[in-house]
Amino acid sequence: MAVNVAVVGATGVVGEEFLRILEERDFPIKELRLLASKRSAGRKVPFRGEEYTVQELTKHSFHGIKIALFSAGASISKEYVPYAIESGAVCVDNSSAFRMDDDVPLVVPEVNPQEIVRHRGVIANPNCSTIQMVVVLKPIHDIARIKRVIVSTYQAVSGAGLKAIDELQKETASILAGKSDFQRTLFPYQIAFNVLPQIPQSKAFLPNGYTSEEMKMVSETKKIMGDPRIGVTATTVRVPVIRGHSESVNIETEKKVDVQEVRNLLSRAPGVALMDDPVNQLYPLPVYAAGRDDVFVGRIREDESIEYGINLWIVSDNIRKGAALNAIQIAERLL
Amino acid sequence: MAVNVAVVGATGVVGEEFLRILEERDFPIKELRLLASKRSAGRKVPFRGEEYTVQELTKHSFHGIKIALFSAGASISKEYVPYAIESGAVCVDNSSAFRMDDDVPLVVPEVNPQEIVRHRGVIANPNCSTIQMVVVLKPIHDIARIKRVIVSTYQAVSGAGLKAIDELQKETASILAGKSDFQRTLFPYQIAFNVLPQIPQSKAFLPNGYTSEEMKMVSETKKIMGDPRIGVTATTVRVPVIRGHSESVNIETEKKVDVQEVRNLLSRAPGVALMDDPVNQLYPLPVYAAGRDDVFVGRIREDESIEYGINLWIVSDNIRKGAALNAIQIAERLL
Repeated sequence: MAVNVAVVGATGVVGEEFLRILEERDFPIKELRLLASKRSAGRKVPFRGEEYTVQELTKHSFHGIKIALFSAGASISKEYVPYAIESGAVCVDNSSAFRMDDDVPLVVPEVNPQEIVRHRGVIANPNCSTIQMVVVLKPIHDIARIKRVIVSTYQAVSGAGLKAIDELQKETASILAGKSDFQRTLFPYQIAFNVLPQIPQSKAFLPNGYTSEEMKMVSETKKIMGDPRIGVTATTVRVPVIRGHSESVNIETEKKVDVQEVRNLLSRAPGVALMDDPVNQLYPLPVYAAGRDDVFVGRIREDESIEYGINLWIVSDNIRKGAALNAIQIAERLL
Repeated sequence: MAVNVAVVGATGVVGEEFLRILEERDFPIKELRLLASKRSAGRKVPFRGEEYTVQELTKHSFHGIKIALFSAGASISKEYVPYAIESGAVCVDNSSAFRMDDDVPLVVPEVNPQEIVRHRGVIANPNCSTIQMVVVLKPIHDIARIKRVIVSTYQAVSGAGLKAIDELQKETASILAGKSDFQRTLFPYQIAFNVLPQIPQSKAFLPNGYTSEEMKMVSETKKIMGDPRIGVTATTVRVPVIRGHSESVNIETEKKVDVQEVRNLLSRAPGVALMDDPVNQLYPLPVYAAGRDDVFVGRIREDESIEYGINLWIVSDNIRKGAALNAIQIAERLL
């Protein structure tokens, strides 16, 4: 049964991906309404061979809409999700606006699909870095209980939007040309041929010295996994990669689980592609994960510094599974 | 008192840095002998306003040499260090050839200078990633005893030599130009706009799934810190950065040490520059560390997932403190 769908933030990097995935997966759409800021209104966007005109987002935009996919930042979500709910829509929100609200499910369909039913009009899509990590950790947690997670990320610039991709490319070209007059507008420091241990780049550090991205990984992991006892600590770092987040993840489990068991588990885990063949130099890479649906995991090793420890290397397309795909998977389960 | 100095591997990326630092630090040189493979012999290299001709390395190259700085790979060191010792030279070897030999001191002057005296003709210079980490960890270990270290690295391509820098730059230009026919000769996969969880890129993984770089960080850290009880686990990753290795380091200590104490300690630690001012968006960056002597540390945070845990972000020039500078500091102490 086809439904009316709205995409809020249709011209952004996640918005574009929403449309690509809705097409690919033959999502049952009756009417598609593309919404964005005034600045983007009027733009023409192709979808299933037709041309759609982007409309300006207003509180009246959601009349007749059944599912609203939001990806226009937390302040837009805070303002407009209530109007969408009032109009009878169910919202899947990619922003951080409602993620930690007790009455809002925070869902990764492979991990906690049972949460979807308790929604009251909005289901939150987790942070990109968290999604790819929990998809891999859940099957291990189920058999060995994860006590602690130490994660360091290698995050692509697309997580900061289309402007960030443009800035990385232009700055890189400028440096290769031997120029030193490139004007940055987004990142506080050079991102080309550099790494920045601050995500998001625009927000102040929290009083405990962490970034909001790091604390999202801590709190969202506990909420999605449904286990507040899991200890999590994170260091999130932007790297000059266009698309695909990588994560070096160290876990400590309560029960023994060896590398071969972890490989077996992950080889049949939903949404996970095991790519762990050191002999043939096969391991996950962002350029390989870009454009694919799976979360790739490899470099699985026993951590010999503790009794029950495992190291993993987890890579996924931050715009697909990390954002648009996960939201659409939630919407599919809603229907 | 000036001495005769040989540089083995004079035309490599570390060799070039040796010459720059010997000049900068006014190292007391009577005669300078530049040695390299047959292929590089005959090349002219400027030093202190004069021109030196690179000579082919042979077993007879070390006559009259007092200090030999080796940086031409482990197999060259294994073959030629014995000849240098026979000729009466003391070798400071940047390769991994002798690092774990019981009778060879493995030295970072800020950490274990007392080891130098027990040399029998060769002192090993540690791996770049290890050096910058132990310079920061030693002062913390001294007051709180580090029980465990979990490190994930973000390593510059210069660690793989001049050809790697060239490959990154050319591949980047090729991708920006929209071409897809770039011929790699060094890295097994694209390094431009990508990250590679395999260092070195040319060597097989060990039976335990780790790379040799990762295991060097484990074994060398214990040896330099003089404490085999420290648990270390590492994930080493190449990033598209020209120069400057970054490390996300999580430590667990036996005794409580808070963030402010760690900052105080590190602000007066030799060879360390504390760069930890989140309010003003100041933290270490590879592009800033490149060309500088110090090891930079920032993003110091309490790890709330365990009782006594600290996260740190450590960045240093992998060619300077990670290789050439550390070796020359050892040579200075020898004199």
